[in-house]
This record gives sequence, structure tokens and C-alpha cells, in this order.
Amino acid sequence: MSLLGDCYKTVRQRSEAICSPLQTEDYVVQPIVDVSPPKWHLGHTTWFFETFILKPYFMGYQEYNPDYNYVFNSYYETVGARVIRTDRGNLSRPTVQDVYKYRAYVDEAMFRFLAEEPSAEVKELMTLGFNHEEQHQELLYYDIKYILGHNPLFPAYDAGYASPKIEHLLAADFISMPEGIYEVGFEGEGFSFDNELNRHKVYLNAYEISPNQVTNEEYLKFINDGGYHDFRFWHAEAWDWVKANKIEAPLYWHLIDEQWQNYTLRGLEQLDLDAPVTHISYYEAYAYASWKGLRLPTEFEWEAAADKFKWGKSWEWTESAYLPYPGFAKAPGAIGEYNGKFMVSQKVLRGASEGTPPGHSRPTYRNFFHPSMRWLFNGIRLAR
Amino acid sequence: MSLLGDCYKTVRQRSEAICSPLQTEDYVVQPIVDVSPPKWHLGHTTWFFETFILKPYFMGYQEYNPDYNYVFNSYYETVGARVIRTDRGNLSRPTVQDVYKYRAYVDEAMFRFLAEEPSAEVKELMTLGFNHEEQHQELLYYDIKYILGHNPLFPAYDAGYASPKIEHLLAADFISMPEGIYEVGFEGEGFSFDNELNRHKVYLNAYEISPNQVTNEEYLKFINDGGYHDFRFWHAEAWDWVKANKIEAPLYWHLIDEQWQNYTLRGLEQLDLDAPVTHISYYEAYAYASWKGLRLPTEFEWEAAADKFKWGKSWEWTESAYLPYPGFAKAPGAIGEYNGKFMVSQKVLRGASEGTPPGHSRPTYRNFFHPSMRWLFNGIRLAR
Amino acid sequence: MSLLGDCYKTVRQRSEAICSPLQTEDYVVQPIVDVSPPKWHLGHTTWFFETFILKPYFMGYQEYNPDYNYVFNSYYETVGARVIRTDRGNLSRPTVQDVYKYRAYVDEAMFRFLAEEPSAEVKELMTLGFNHEEQHQELLYYDIKYILGHNPLFPAYDAGYASPKIEHLLAADFISMPEGIYEVGFEGEGFSFDNELNRHKVYLNAYEISPNQVTNEEYLKFINDGGYHDFRFWHAEAWDWVKANKIEAPLYWHLIDEQWQNYTLRGLEQLDLDAPVTHISYYEAYAYASWKGLRLPTEFEWEAAADKFKWGKSWEWTESAYLPYPGFAKAPGAIGEYNGKFMVSQKVLRGASEGTPPGHSRPTYRNFFHPSMRWLFNGIRLAR
Amino acid sequence: MSLLGDCYKTVRQRSEAICSPLQTEDYVVQPIVDVSPPKWHLGHTTWFFETFILKPYFMGYQEYNPDYNYVFNSYYETVGARVIRTDRGNLSRPTVQDVYKYRAYVDEAMFRFLAEEPSAEVKELMTLGFNHEEQHQELLYYDIKYILGHNPLFPAYDAGYASPKIEHLLAADFISMPEGIYEVGFEGEGFSFDNELNRHKVYLNAYEISPNQVTNEEYLKFINDGGYHDFRFWHAEAWDWVKANKIEAPLYWHLIDEQWQNYTLRGLEQLDLDAPVTHISYYEAYAYASWKGLRLPTEFEWEAAADKFKWGKSWEWTESAYLPYPGFAKAPGAIGEYNGKFMVSQKVLRGASEGTPPGHSRPTYRNFFHPSMRWLFNGIRLAR
Repeated sequence: MSLLGDCYKTVRQRSEAICSPLQTEDYVVQPIVDVSPPKWHLGHTTWFFETFILKPYFMGYQEYNPDYNYVFNSYYETVGARVIRTDRGNLSRPTVQDVYKYRAYVDEAMFRFLAEEPSAEVKELMTLGFNHEEQHQELLYYDIKYILGHNPLFPAYDAGYASPKIEHLLAADFISMPEGIYEVGFEGEGFSFDNELNRHKVYLNAYEISPNQVTNEEYLKFINDGGYHDFRFWHAEAWDWVKANKIEAPLYWHLIDEQWQNYTLRGLEQLDLDAPVTHISYYEAYAYASWKGLRLPTEFEWEAAADKFKWGKSWEWTESAYLPYPGFAKAPGAIGEYNGKFMVSQKVLRGASEGTPPGHSRPTYRNFFHPSMRWLFNGIRLAR
Repeated sequence: MSLLGDCYKTVRQRSEAICSPLQTEDYVVQPIVDVSPPKWHLGHTTWFFETFILKPYFMGYQEYNPDYNYVFNSYYETVGARVIRTDRGNLSRPTVQDVYKYRAYVDEAMFRFLAEEPSAEVKELMTLGFNHEEQHQELLYYDIKYILGHNPLFPAYDAGYASPKIEHLLAADFISMPEGIYEVGFEGEGFSFDNELNRHKVYLNAYEISPNQVTNEEYLKFINDGGYHDFRFWHAEAWDWVKANKIEAPLYWHLIDEQWQNYTLRGLEQLDLDAPVTHISYYEAYAYASWKGLRLPTEFEWEAAADKFKWGKSWEWTESAYLPYPGFAKAPGAIGEYNGKFMVSQKVLRGASEGTPPGHSRPTYRNFFHPSMRWLFNGIRLAR
Repeated sequence: MSLLGDCYKTVRQRSEAICSPLQTEDYVVQPIVDVSPPKWHLGHTTWFFETFILKPYFMGYQEYNPDYNYVFNSYYETVGARVIRTDRGNLSRPTVQDVYKYRAYVDEAMFRFLAEEPSAEVKELMTLGFNHEEQHQELLYYDIKYILGHNPLFPAYDAGYASPKIEHLLAADFISMPEGIYEVGFEGEGFSFDNELNRHKVYLNAYEISPNQVTNEEYLKFINDGGYHDFRFWHAEAWDWVKANKIEAPLYWHLIDEQWQNYTLRGLEQLDLDAPVTHISYYEAYAYASWKGLRLPTEFEWEAAADKFKWGKSWEWTESAYLPYPGFAKAPGAIGEYNGKFMVSQKVLRGASEGTPPGHSRPTYRNFFHPSMRWLFNGIRLAR
Repeated sequence: MSLLGDCYKTVRQRSEAICSPLQTEDYVVQPIVDVSPPKWHLGHTTWFFETFILKPYFMGYQEYNPDYNYVFNSYYETVGARVIRTDRGNLSRPTVQDVYKYRAYVDEAMFRFLAEEPSAEVKELMTLGFNHEEQHQELLYYDIKYILGHNPLFPAYDAGYASPKIEHLLAADFISMPEGIYEVGFEGEGFSFDNELNRHKVYLNAYEISPNQVTNEEYLKFINDGGYHDFRFWHAEAWDWVKANKIEAPLYWHLIDEQWQNYTLRGLEQLDLDAPVTHISYYEAYAYASWKGLRLPTEFEWEAAADKFKWGKSWEWTESAYLPYPGFAKAPGAIGEYNGKFMVSQKVLRGASEGTPPGHSRPTYRNFFHPSMRWLFNGIRLAR
């Protein structure tokens, strides 16, 4: 089989491996609008290859089920009506088994299609398809954790799940970065998303950035110091959010018999004080930094210093809004909807997380979420 | 086995028989707040026997899982915290198989418990438990139809499902009922709910009531005459509801290529013009009657004439609000929450539906729903 | 001037007298959707005479301002588009002075019109117009109290305002009423609303009804006994309402330095323990009765006994839903929208209040509000 | 009188001059949450001087009314509880006359206080107070226009109101700006807000910027080309906003008898095709640019070129998110809440508007609003 075929197989199998510990019912539910049912992820990533590769490029390909276009489309307004996002968890059909059949059908067609060397244009789309499915693999981790972690029975995803360890450099000094012109953005061989292009110059003032992420122990001090009850540390919009949602701690933290418990993929556990704090919104990251008398780095400060610290356990909130780089242009057609249309009201995160597929991220990678989002694997690195 | 044991077995098996055509995924979802996931009905009715019979009366009974009390409680505030109603469809666990295991465990204990003749008090609670589970059997039909009928793939529940036929008496005259004192409410042997008690006198003016329910063909005339666009036929509250929800036809009707299709438990079908109209709110029933220059009967007019016409295919909206009968008193404890606490802002329906278990209803039976509800099997009978 | 002209003058002047203690700004605001700005009441009642008398019956009448039809129409869908109810408090124009000019203009035209004896049909409409304006006079009291009573400065409406005294018969026995057929509803000379017609027979079981309304002191016992925190006394819908709105006491009660203060039309005062409790919802009236082991009377029980007790300080919640009487028929045209379209989801109140114009109410009078409404002058009379 | 006293007088009189064409009622209402009643602006700006100058610095000053602190506080959480923003339009008291008395009282005290030369610290606070009141003067224009322009009678604010003319350079070429390091931000003598500090270097790629703002005629082409109905031009969040709010044109445009009318401060007028388009959200500005194949400038591109074009008729949306400049620090205490807490989810606008007080703006001035806001005087300048 071709290298492209191998890549395809690896990517596709990884999605199914992530879901392998699930019960059928776990594939179906959608407890909040930001979460998608796992079976939807499995169907949607398959629909992507069917819609953008097989239907336009594989002569004689027979669409599996035209109704699936309706069910598994996500935001691609170009491609036609879609099930509204809030309704994904209301759909018992197609069943999980139906979705796996759909995957097998499309995979089989893809392998036949890849028997011949595809054009450069198709290869580019394939690579986008791989990276797209890898993004959904990361979302699968977020969504599965939310589905199980918000069930009153607190079931484990995998009792033996081991999250990667990040070494902390005790009492390490902040890294000093000199004032000057830096180059940021992607350039060179290999895949990047359109939002990382083009490589361009930025001017940075001198700054310092921490080699470590903030730990649960440090964050607990903020809580114990009344950080969630003192408006001075919060944006006005954040303060409204804290009060409206009665936020008192990171997501998945539970104060039980005066002990902090934390829901992990292994189930409910005592809070690990040494681990980096995670599942906090940008609002909380900012408030924590504010309480410390420090600040979050911008995405360019982060990128310029990224080879000087270890990253990769959880995405790190930056102070930067998600905006187009100089010269940014949307691709034509439905593919063009990929990134550009989210470039308002979002904050950039940099790094990667324990849910990120190997090789998926890089120092120029720009992840982005609304500042209130907490269900992703995220964290805090401070600057000054 | 005892007669009580036979009854128990019959009731319990019927719930499972209703669910037998379902896929695992169909048991899990909750597309609107009024619908409960089928697995919740199966668990909740089991929890009822465990909580009100086994735990208080069966010495040495070992509770199956204390957390289930949290998951399967419904409105019984007395019994402790509960999963809020809107969250039922967010729970992937307990799985469907877990729920069936729970049923088997409780059933086995119940059979052991029933080996000895229970007290009169327990027998009364058992009978309430049977009737409670029968009510949920009816709800199972409503909810399953909603779950499948709101899926874009329109799957059939059972391709061979045959709904009972009701003979229509063509051009039949209205039945005349003389002015006078009538007795209404339940009295005598056998089970009744507390809301049917006590039998008491009411004074009715002379009235006439139709021997037939309104058909789809008749209702279509109302639609085609612009009934949904003329505020004069509607209550003020109903008119707001029509406009806010853009209501244009009964639930499950779809105008496809200028033909009216109707989702039934067999799937999408051409609208049967001769069948009684169903899945309309009280608001629509009232508006239809108003357009006809007629009115809905009160629940007492209905009851007084109930032996003069055929009923039982779908519950019939009445003009009566759901209020306590003279001398109504709640039972003490959690059981007392059964009916009384809903006696505000609801309308009474009389009769029965094709989803009603055999023998469950009777002429004094009072069903009740909020006037906007359409997912139940209901219908219209006119009076003047 | 004619008798009709005198009546007209009296009614019209009374509306303006009620508003005379107001500042211009008090005429404008609408703190909740149920409250209308006083200037709207003054304009709307004027619009009623202009629209239903002057325009159809007074040859050559020149409409004051066609745009006012848009601004001062209320629910009369027949008559054309209207400012939506929630927007009334957003309109700074027409100004208060403009509205008084409009009143003067219409009044002047009405006096010219009444120089000749009008037809019986017009007289009937005039009488409806008087009663309509009197209903708005009562609403003016409710709305003014709400506007001033929800201002953080707690301004008095009239520092010398004296509410009528109701004698309480200390420890008086309940009044016993025998079982049997009673006649209810309006019959005879004089004005009645369509919802009081026709006089008809009802069958009542034996009952007892209190000669007194519940006092603040009695209601305080319910509060102090934890009545607002015990779901057993409440309807399910009411319990949700209590929790969602954090209801702890009647409207206008304020616990300040551990003393109950009550906002009255004279300003904030110490709670008068002997006065009848008022500004409670039906939900609270029911919960109080439930806590007492008693119940509210039906509207027919109230009417049948109304000559045996004193009423008139505040409308009394009954257990009855607001439904049409036998033979009820809407008047044709816009006037027909008057009452019938509210006959769903409302509760009947009987009696009158201190805000009711003299002679406006009678024992057959049916007032009605949604069970959650508290800003009207209402109260509790118990039955058993 | 001192220079400071003269400035004070000028600023204070200008607020009252803006309100002089209003009727009492116009001062009171709040049709949407973003609008504040004019009397609130008059009271709040007065409260600012009383709270931050008179009370802490003027020995023996007698607070006018402690309750006003509650009514006229805005966002200053430090200073105590406040009337929630949505409630401002529900307050009939203090009356307009009361507010003018409050202004006179505080002004009189201020003049006495200014008889002696104040400290540098107080002078700085005074200057902030002037700029604060000037910002509210601009808001007064927005709010008054909204209040009158959303009244069904469309009253004019001032029939003779003349908005400043901006010359358009017909078919003018875009201005070319070379790549390189630019300095942005405020430095030097005179007042600036904390969000303009510090002056710092940014690196800009080569860009071109239009010397003209987009006109109504140009914008009309976007409308006529279906711009509001083609998702490709819109951010995902913007597209949801367009559909949810049924947006079809700028605020204040009305299509009447197939002619575009525009509400101006002179009343409803035929749309002036040559005037710059205004009252559009950032979403619309972006969509327009997208449809044109161009883009909005960043705030730094705007600032670097600001001396090359005329600006000042309406604030111009930029692509930049409102974020802190390098070295930004909040002032201590309540004054520190001024700007920093809004630095999330807002877009920067640059320039000034016809409602901006003379001398209030400058090229480094940063205005900011949520991207959906349309009631401010804003506009579009394109870049590429």
C-alpha cells in the first residue's frame, strides 16, 4: 500500500481506538452544545473524505446514504442543510453500528481509490482530511471526558489511563527574551493550516516567560485567597460569567467532605497538587495571572520562546485574540470555511495537549476557543 | 404463583415488549424535555417497586445500587435529590443492559416477596405500582414516536404496526343530553386514581355531543381555510404560541411536494383522511371548535355521555381545567405527590388511546396535560 | 347634560384624579411586562371611545392622530398592528401632555356627540367603555404601586392615602352552606360583562367558608413555619416558581434589620399584622391553605355565600379556573375579544379591591389572572 | 475663575446643551440594555465628581443624597451595590428636575472647591472627570437617537440639526504604506486614557488604506447583491446574528414603498447616497469588506496612516481586538476599573464621530465595542 494509504489507515484506526473503551450509549449523548456525540465525530470525519475526495474525484463512487450528508455535515454551509448543532444528541439513528459500517464502506472505497497515485490537489485534500480527523480525535477526548465526567455515576473511561508527565523545574527562573523583531508563522515543508500562514515579522518588547505551567497547588492558593469572589481580578464579562454560572473552581473539581476530588479519565481521584491546572476558562487564566500580578503571554511571545520550555500536556491560553495573519486568504469553496470564519470573539491557545495526536501540533500551531470554554485540556503559563 | 404475581409479571413484561423493536441508541435520547429516554421509563418504574415495596416491606432486601435512586427518581421530592428532568437524555450510564439487569434483580426479589401473601396495604401499593407502570407504557409510545419521528431518517418503530380502527358513523347526529343532575367520579370495586374520587353530583345544562371524533379530512379544511392564520379562533395565549412556534399543522404532518405526509409508527405515510386527527394541542382543538362554531365538551359532559359513543383511540381534550373533586385529599407521604400537585394550569383529557394498556382506562379516568402538549395521542370531539 | 354625559364625565375625571399625585416621569416607565405606563392607560381608554364610538358613529369626526391607533391599541388584533406589550415603557412620545391633549380632544368630541340621544347600540358600547375605563383605573393603582414600590427611593404615592378598613370578626365561625343546587351568574338589569352570563345552575356539596380574610399575622406564621421551603404545600409548577424567583414573602414585604416592612401607597411602613395579607400569588394562597389543612373556595362556593360575609378590600383567589359559562358566546368583531380569549390558564378571583371604582363590582363579577401574578390587590379566604 | 473651573463649566454645560431639545419623557426610557436614559447620564457624570473629588478631597462636603450612590453608580463595583443596568429605564425617580438640582448642587460645591488651587493628584482626577463626561456626551447622542428613532412617531431631535460634512475624494487611490517598524500609542503632554499607553513599536507589512469611508451608495450595492443572504461573507458568529435578528440593512434604514428612508436626528429622510454608511456592526463591516475582496485595517495600520486621510465623522471599525498594550497597568482603586476590565471580546474603533466633543479624540484614541453593536456612529474604511 502507498504511504498515503498507510497514513490514512493510521489516522482512521486511531479514531476508533479512542472510542474502543466506550459503551454504545456513550456514543450517543450530547450533554452541552459544545460536546458532540462520539458517533457524530466518527461519522463526520468519514463524511469529510466521502464529500471532498470520493464524490468529486473517484469516478463511479456510489454515495453510501444521501441522508448522511444531512446528519454528518457540521458547519459547511456550502454543502447544504445540516442538523443544527444542538440536535446532535437527539439522534438515535444512524446507530453506532451503522456509523461503523459507513466508516468501513468509505475506507474500502478510499483504499481502492488510493491504488492509483492521486493528483497533487487530492494529496493536499487528503492531508487536510488527516489533520481534520486528528482535530476530531482531540475533541473526542474532550467530549468523552465531559460525557462520563458529568454522569452522576462518574464512570472511568479507562481505569489504567496514564496521562503524560511533564517535568516541573522547581523554582525555575523566568526566561528572558530581548526586545526586537521576531518571525512568526509557518513556513517550509509539511502541512500547516491556513491560519498559520504566512510567516511574518512582529516587533516584541522585552519580556519574560515562565518555563513551567501553573500547578493545581498554585491555583488552589488563588481559590483559597478568595479569587473567585473578588471582581478586581476579572474582566467585566468574566465576572458576569462567574456569578451567572456560580463558578468556584476548575471544571471536574468536586469538594467532597472538604477534600478536593478531581474527575480524570480514570474516574474520581484525589486532586494531584503537582499536576498542571487544567479545565479553566481564559477568564480564569486571566484572573489567576491578575491575582499573581503577572499576565498571560501573547501568542507571539509564546511562539518566539517555544523552544526554551517544554510544552504539550495542555494547550495554553494566550492573551491574543484569534485574528488573521497578514496576507491571510480563505481557500475557495467549502474548504475555505475551515478557519477564517471563526476569526472573531475567540482567544488563541498555543502548544498541544495529552489528547493531541503525535506530530499533529507544532510551535506555529494556533488553536482557538471562546474565552469561556473549559472542557478542553488547557492550562496557564505566565509572563511579565 | 399468586394472582398478584401474575399481574406483576404481565405488567412488567408489557413494558419490555413495547421496547423490543428498539435499537440500544433509541433508549437513550431525549429530544425535548417532555420526552424521557425509554431506558429511564424502564428504570423509573422498577425504582418505584424497589422504593415503595421492597425497601420498606421486604425484610433483608439489599438495594441494587443506591445511586440509582438519584438517577431514576422522577418528581418525588420527598425521596431525595434527582437528576433534573432536562438532563435525562445526557446520561449514557447506566446502560440499557444495566437497566435490564436492574429490572431482573428487582423482579426476582418481588417474586420472592410475593411468595407470601402481602398485607392489604402492600396490595394497594402494588396496584398503584401496576397502574403507574401502565401509565409509563403509554408514555413510552408517545416518547418512542417522538424520538423516531423527529429523526431525519424517519425510521419505523414497527413496519407492521396496526393501530386500532374506530368506526365512524357517517353523518351521525349529535347525541342529545337533557339538563339535570348527573353523578360523576369513581365509586365501587377496583382501582381508581385519587383524582377520580369522590363520586359526586354535578348540574349540567342540556347539551349535545358528537358521536364521532374529528377526522384528518375535517381538520384539513380548517387548515385550508386559513385557521392557523386567523387570530379570532384562538385564545390570546394560544395565538402567541402559534406565532412563536410557527405552527401550521398537527405534529408529524409534513407537506412534501404539496402532499400531506404523516409520520406514523410504521414510518412516513400519506395522510389518512378518514382517521381521527391527532397530535394537536388543546389550543388547536379549541381553535378548530371555534372555527366550526362549536365547542369542546366539559369533562362532565363527556363522562355523562360516555356510554353513548365509542372512545379509546386517542384521548380527547375537554374544556375542563384539571381541578380537585369535592373532598379530594392527598395521600400522606411521597405517594401523595402523585396527582394533586399537578392540579393547576392543566387541561383534562378523557377516554384512552391506542397506547393505553388494556383495562387501564375507564369513563371516570382523568388524564391531564398542559394545553400546549401535542406529542400524546389525542383528539377532538365536539359539543354544543 | 345627559345622564350618559354625566357618567362619562365622572368616569373620565376619576382616571385623571388617580394620576394627579404623579410626576411626569412616573407616567412613562414599565418595570415589568404586566405593568403598563400610566400614560398608556390614559391614552388607551381614550382610544377605546375614539375607535368604537366616535369613528363609527359620529359623522364627520376627525381622528386625532392615526399613529395613536398604533400606540394605544392593546390586544385588539382586529383593529391592526400594535406596539408590542413589552415596548410600552420604551416610548417617550407621545408625551404626558400630548396624552392629556388627546383626552381633552376626544372628551370634547364625545360631549358634542352626546348632545343628541344616542342609539341603544351606542349606549351599550358607552357602558362597556365606562366599565373598561374603570378596569383600567384599578390597573392604574396596581401599576403605580409597582412603579413606585420598586424604585430604590421608595417614594410615596400619597402620604395621606387611607385604605378602607375591613372589620375582622375575631374567632368567627366558618359559615356553613348546605348541599344543593345553586344559581350563579348574572341576570337582570344593569351592566355585566359577557363572562358573567348566563345565570345557570350548579350543584354544590355542603361546604364551610370563612367570614374573614387571612391576615398578615396568620400568613407570617406560615412563613415562620418554613412554608416557603417545604415543597409539600405547593403545586409542582408553583414550587419551580418559588425556587426560580427565590420567593420568600408577599410582594412589597422587606425584612430590614429583622423587622418586616411593607411598601404601601404611603411609602415603606412597619407591617400591619391585623390587615389582610395581600400581593400573594394563587400559588401562595393555595400553599397557605394547604399548610392550614384547608382549601380555597371555588368561585361558585364564593358566590353562593357572598351575602354572608364582607368583601371588597382585595380580590380573593378561588380554586376555579377561568372558563366559559354554559352558553357563553363572544360578541362579534373587536369587542368580542374582550374576555373570551383569556379563558385558558387563568384563575378566577372574586370580590373587589380598594382600587375598584365604586359600583364597579358585584357578587357575580369574575376577575381573572395568571396564578403567578402578585401585583394586584388580592387576598385569601379559606374554605373546607 | 480658574482655567480648571472654566473647563469644568464648559464640559458640564455641554451635557445639558445636548439634552436641551428633549422632552421630560425622553430623559427616562431605556429601549435596549445598551442605551441608558439621558437623565442617568446626567446623574452619573455628576456622581463621578461627587464621589471621586468632593467626598474624598473637599473637607466638610455634605453628600447630596446617599441613595443616589445606588442609583447613579455604573460599573464601579468597588464603590458598592448598583442598580443593575437593565433596570435604569424602570426608574421614574429621581425625576429629571431632581437630577438637574443634583447637578446644580454638585456644580456649586465644585466651584467653591476650585476656589483654591487643587493638588496635582486632584487635577489629574478632574481631567479624567472631564474626559469621562465627554464620553457620556457622545453616548448621549447615540442613546437619544435610539430613543427617538425607535419611537413609532419618529420625532426629530432637532429639525435643524446639521451633521458635519466629510469631503469625499472621488475615485481616490488607496494610500500606500511601506513595510517597517512604526510607533503607536500615546506619548507626550496632555490627557490620554490608560489604554493608549505606552507608546511602543509594532512591525507592519506593506499595506494600502482607502482615503475615503464607504458610502451608503456603495453599501447599497452590497445589499442589492444579496450580501445579507450569502454566508460566505460572514463570520460564523455573525451569520447566526444575521439570521437570529433578521438583519437586512443598517440600523435606522427603513424600506418604505420601495424607497430607502433613513432616520436621522432631523427625523425620517430619504437615504443620502453620498454620505458615509453608518450604524453597522463590525460583522457587517467585515462582511462588506469580504464581499469587496478587501479587508478592514488593523488599529495600528489605521494609526500609522491617520495623518494621510480625513477622519472624524464616525468611528471606524478595525480588525483589531481590544487588548492591552505592552506594559499596560490598571490604576489602583475604583478608577482602575475604567478600561482594563473590558479588554476581552471587543473590537477597536478608531477616529471620532460627529457626536465626539471637540478635542476629545486624537489619532491614538482607542474606542471599543462589542462586534454586534450598531447604535453608535460608526463606519467602514477599507484596506488591502
